[in-house]
Amino acid sequence: MSADARPVVPRAGRLRPLSLGEVEIVGGSWAQRQHVNSAATLAHCQGWMERLEWVANFERATDGTIAGNHHGMMFADSDVYKLMEAMAWEVGRSGSEDADGRIRGLTEIIGAAQESDGYLNTVFGRPGQEPRYSNLEWGHELYNFGHLLQAGVARSRTTGDDRFVEITRRAADHVCATFGPGGIERVGGHPEIELGLVEMARVTGEQRYLDQAELFVERRGRGTLGEIGFGQAYFQDDMPVREATVFRGHAVRALYLAAGVVDVAVETGDDDLLASVISQWEATIARRTYLTGGMGSHHTGEAFGDDFVLPPDRAYSETCAGIASVMLAWRLLLATGEPRFADLIERTLYNVIATSPAPDGRSFFYANPLHQRVPGKYPDPDVESKRASSSLREPWFLVACCPTNVARTLASLAAYLATVDTGGIQIHQFVESRIGTTLDDGRRVGVEVSTDYPSGGAVTVRITESDQRPWALTLRIPNWATGATLTDPSGDRRAAGPGNVVVEWPFGVGDEVTLTVPIGPRWTRPDPRIDAIRGCVAVERGPIVMCAESVDLADGRHVDVLRVDPSVPPRDEDGAVLVNARLVEPPDQPWPYGEESGTGTGEADSGPVDIPLTPYHSWANRGPSTMRVWIPVTNS
Amino acid sequence: MSADARPVVPRAGRLRPLSLGEVEIVGGSWAQRQHVNSAATLAHCQGWMERLEWVANFERATDGTIAGNHHGMMFADSDVYKLMEAMAWEVGRSGSEDADGRIRGLTEIIGAAQESDGYLNTVFGRPGQEPRYSNLEWGHELYNFGHLLQAGVARSRTTGDDRFVEITRRAADHVCATFGPGGIERVGGHPEIELGLVEMARVTGEQRYLDQAELFVERRGRGTLGEIGFGQAYFQDDMPVREATVFRGHAVRALYLAAGVVDVAVETGDDDLLASVISQWEATIARRTYLTGGMGSHHTGEAFGDDFVLPPDRAYSETCAGIASVMLAWRLLLATGEPRFADLIERTLYNVIATSPAPDGRSFFYANPLHQRVPGKYPDPDVESKRASSSLREPWFLVACCPTNVARTLASLAAYLATVDTGGIQIHQFVESRIGTTLDDGRRVGVEVSTDYPSGGAVTVRITESDQRPWALTLRIPNWATGATLTDPSGDRRAAGPGNVVVEWPFGVGDEVTLTVPIGPRWTRPDPRIDAIRGCVAVERGPIVMCAESVDLADGRHVDVLRVDPSVPPRDEDGAVLVNARLVEPPDQPWPYGEESGTGTGEADSGPVDIPLTPYHSWANRGPSTMRVWIPVTNS
Repeated sequence: MSADARPVVPRAGRLRPLSLGEVEIVGGSWAQRQHVNSAATLAHCQGWMERLEWVANFERATDGTIAGNHHGMMFADSDVYKLMEAMAWEVGRSGSEDADGRIRGLTEIIGAAQESDGYLNTVFGRPGQEPRYSNLEWGHELYNFGHLLQAGVARSRTTGDDRFVEITRRAADHVCATFGPGGIERVGGHPEIELGLVEMARVTGEQRYLDQAELFVERRGRGTLGEIGFGQAYFQDDMPVREATVFRGHAVRALYLAAGVVDVAVETGDDDLLASVISQWEATIARRTYLTGGMGSHHTGEAFGDDFVLPPDRAYSETCAGIASVMLAWRLLLATGEPRFADLIERTLYNVIATSPAPDGRSFFYANPLHQRVPGKYPDPDVESKRASSSLREPWFLVACCPTNVARTLASLAAYLATVDTGGIQIHQFVESRIGTTLDDGRRVGVEVSTDYPSGGAVTVRITESDQRPWALTLRIPNWATGATLTDPSGDRRAAGPGNVVVEWPFGVGDEVTLTVPIGPRWTRPDPRIDAIRGCVAVERGPIVMCAESVDLADGRHVDVLRVDPSVPPRDEDGAVLVNARLVEPPDQPWPYGEESGTGTGEADSGPVDIPLTPYHSWANRGPSTMRVWIPVTNS
Repeated sequence: MSADARPVVPRAGRLRPLSLGEVEIVGGSWAQRQHVNSAATLAHCQGWMERLEWVANFERATDGTIAGNHHGMMFADSDVYKLMEAMAWEVGRSGSEDADGRIRGLTEIIGAAQESDGYLNTVFGRPGQEPRYSNLEWGHELYNFGHLLQAGVARSRTTGDDRFVEITRRAADHVCATFGPGGIERVGGHPEIELGLVEMARVTGEQRYLDQAELFVERRGRGTLGEIGFGQAYFQDDMPVREATVFRGHAVRALYLAAGVVDVAVETGDDDLLASVISQWEATIARRTYLTGGMGSHHTGEAFGDDFVLPPDRAYSETCAGIASVMLAWRLLLATGEPRFADLIERTLYNVIATSPAPDGRSFFYANPLHQRVPGKYPDPDVESKRASSSLREPWFLVACCPTNVARTLASLAAYLATVDTGGIQIHQFVESRIGTTLDDGRRVGVEVSTDYPSGGAVTVRITESDQRPWALTLRIPNWATGATLTDPSGDRRAAGPGNVVVEWPFGVGDEVTLTVPIGPRWTRPDPRIDAIRGCVAVERGPIVMCAESVDLADGRHVDVLRVDPSVPPRDEDGAVLVNARLVEPPDQPWPYGEESGTGTGEADSGPVDIPLTPYHSWANRGPSTMRVWIPVTNS
């Protein structure tokens, strides 16, 4: 496999990403998820797309029978491409022959549908269909191309050029020819083409792909899209990119755009543009992000809310927005080297991305609310869900962006764990893994990370390759961690506060650096400006957000009866996280407002009882349940 | 004018409604609103509908040019009908020649478009259009007919039969012929036809209209509508009407349906069906209604939320849902005589319906949230709003159901104030008014209500017609009132608790009954299960929900800095309602969650200051502002 098997390969930046050939996940929950992804999810996704005739759309486009006979949404093509990207990373990760064969098969079908000028889309442009680019607001043609390009990049970097890669380059050429200067000087309603084009420029060295991406970024926010009911902020056409102060509108659109903007800024050396995105990110993290790292407060428009609008029950927090947020944070981490971006990646991996797939890899959450009021019903296993919001994971969706997005992220996850710079290795995520790479001066170095993190907080990094000349091993102490300690190869132990801690050492094979992060459960309080969770607290344990589920309450009670006293800390006991709670049921009243309403009036109160909490990412794995992350405090 | 000028005339029930000929509003804020409605709103609405070519749709349908040239939404016809209903009530209320002339003009235009079998719709059925009833889920044909029938009823009862009334009866006949037994045995996606048909049966005595309404009620919830993305509860097709336990789905749909169901139940003597609706209403009032009386928690699907999901900032609380709720409660009040239904009518009139129109009657709120986080921008006065949600009243909407709904309600409002039964008069709403009617035994009785309620709490009912034989004057003491007193014609004074208080008396002309309701401001607390307003209190003054607006805060501060101490009561002072508050600004943090977050940490605190509150229904009348009804308590 190519040493270049990385999703993002910036020309410049503080840190250099490692390839799937340089980092391997060897154990722990993420290895298990990667195994399930390979063994179950990829075929599951392809099976649904075949059954729903989304793959057949390409065949019908080829044989001239597509008009009036297109199946699925107008962005169904992109799901096929995103699956191919996932398969390409899987080939890169494991050498899977099954995935490779599937890519080859799909390549034949897709390639036949590509038109002579590189245009490829099953919804537009053929006799009986609407003309190409006649609906830039909603047509998703450029969005589909963006995913096609990302898939082509993945294939090129993991296997090398083949017919599929050639298809994707012809598509990129078509986009440049059509949307370049003097062409259609507009943008698409769903960003994604930008980051596809930049990565294609990186993989090919073709400047014109980068130029086109830059054009798309500069054109956005200048009114080239028509008015829509959601308002122009929905697709970030409300103001020029570099004038924005916060992410807004449709969360996935906003985050894919921002990721592409970082790519453009890094490639063109536009520090002002990069600074603008970082500033927007900071405002979004400070005021528009859920405890889980989830983004998007509203079902309507799948959109960010105003500052501090973060309702737990109506949280949209789309799985794809979590993935897009990781894509963005990874680019910012590479550009700046700042650990705050790795902090967010960790939070989002464990609490959004890990939440979506079921343990068997065959059903998924699309939205990830932090409060479920009504127990779910088992979905029909043979019918795709028409809605994003469900209270149990569903096998497939009419709008199916999330499953394949999870699949491509899991298959390429090793590439997001560590980096190198001129002086050494940076380990950003503590995952059982083996890393072997070459420093800029040509020295080979290797380490093995052993840990049961985040169950436990001990991380051992054993040197497996080094020539006893000094280099720097950098470990990220998470921003929530207090009391962490680091032991260097001499056995000296020191305190390590949040941020990057560096061990500069003449490492030899067998040397060990050990990090111990206290990982016990802790109360977390919200900013008082988040109205929707006033008077509530949550429990976090290490990077894991915990939740209460009704399956753990006796007598069929639901979680809305829970009250906790934050002066009594949560605790680990026999492998469970316990909180001391009261089960309080207010009396039913004909009208829920009055001078006497409020806690303490005629309530049935259980007295103190211990309640076990569950990692949020595992909620609903035991069947229908009510759930809450944020629990009201006693007398709130 | 016909003595029958009432929107609802049930065959049976505890109370008999009075007509516009029997009750007249003579002063106070509602008289002012009626004046503005007549002088400004009716012409404003017609002007917009002409300018946007919604009226022209009928002309184009007539001359064969409508295909591909229809303007507005597919329910634009209904807005014309609802305007005609408003004008018909206005003719009944004031004898307005202007309104009468407008009705005659519109009648010509609409009548020409009616097809020979009574079908009338500008979107379906003509060459180049989709076939009639080809999209019962979204086509709104039966919804449009429902409004047409209501308008015809209003015209018939206020002016008598004319060409317009004939048009509406032919439409009703068409519906029965098409959807009767052996016809299209399905329902429409938006209830409304049911109550139109029942009222048409009442006005004509035609049993088949009632039978058809009953069929529509019994068919609903049996899967005759296709699957939609919002789910079948959206249009109440998820379960049979009498099996439901609470209102759910699209709020306006749910409430129009329930009103029609009450009509059917009352006409057919189906007490079980009536009991089912009352039980659904009780559950909805107890768990799914805003303090304002507003209903509908979600923008998505304009829908009820689950129990206790009542976010103030994302409250949809559509103006039309408030109106539909009054329509339903009025029917339940007539059927049962229970004052709780009049309590809800009062709350909704003062805090939802009064909130929508601007003082000049030329702009409107569509959604009525209880918390505005970002100051609004003045809308373009020449462009219809594409969105329901705005932070300033807007002149018109692409979906324009609300303005004409307000107009028809205001024009007919006198009919909702009082009733008679066998023994006397019931005054449900305290409005400056004159009432003159005939009791069942043939005696003429009349009263004059003098009051500045709800500014003040004194209500004087002076007898203007009576023969000194005893009859019963019933007054409703609102459910929020404590310490009310009633003085009978002898001068005896007694305490009067919430509910109906009856003065049985041999009234003579000039006798007075005086009610005094303490009306000072009071704190109101929410049920602790309403998560979104935990730790907050509101102020009510009499029936008026108050709010804080940023225009009343110094230094450009916004309302989210307010904290109040509920141990210090709000107070009336110099005509203003004042609360003692602190202005608290938490420090900005890069991440809004942590062990240290929460009030009391590094906050800037103004110390105690008096803040004036505004009636919620007047908010945003002074321009862009942030606003909140529910204010956090200190240290919450």
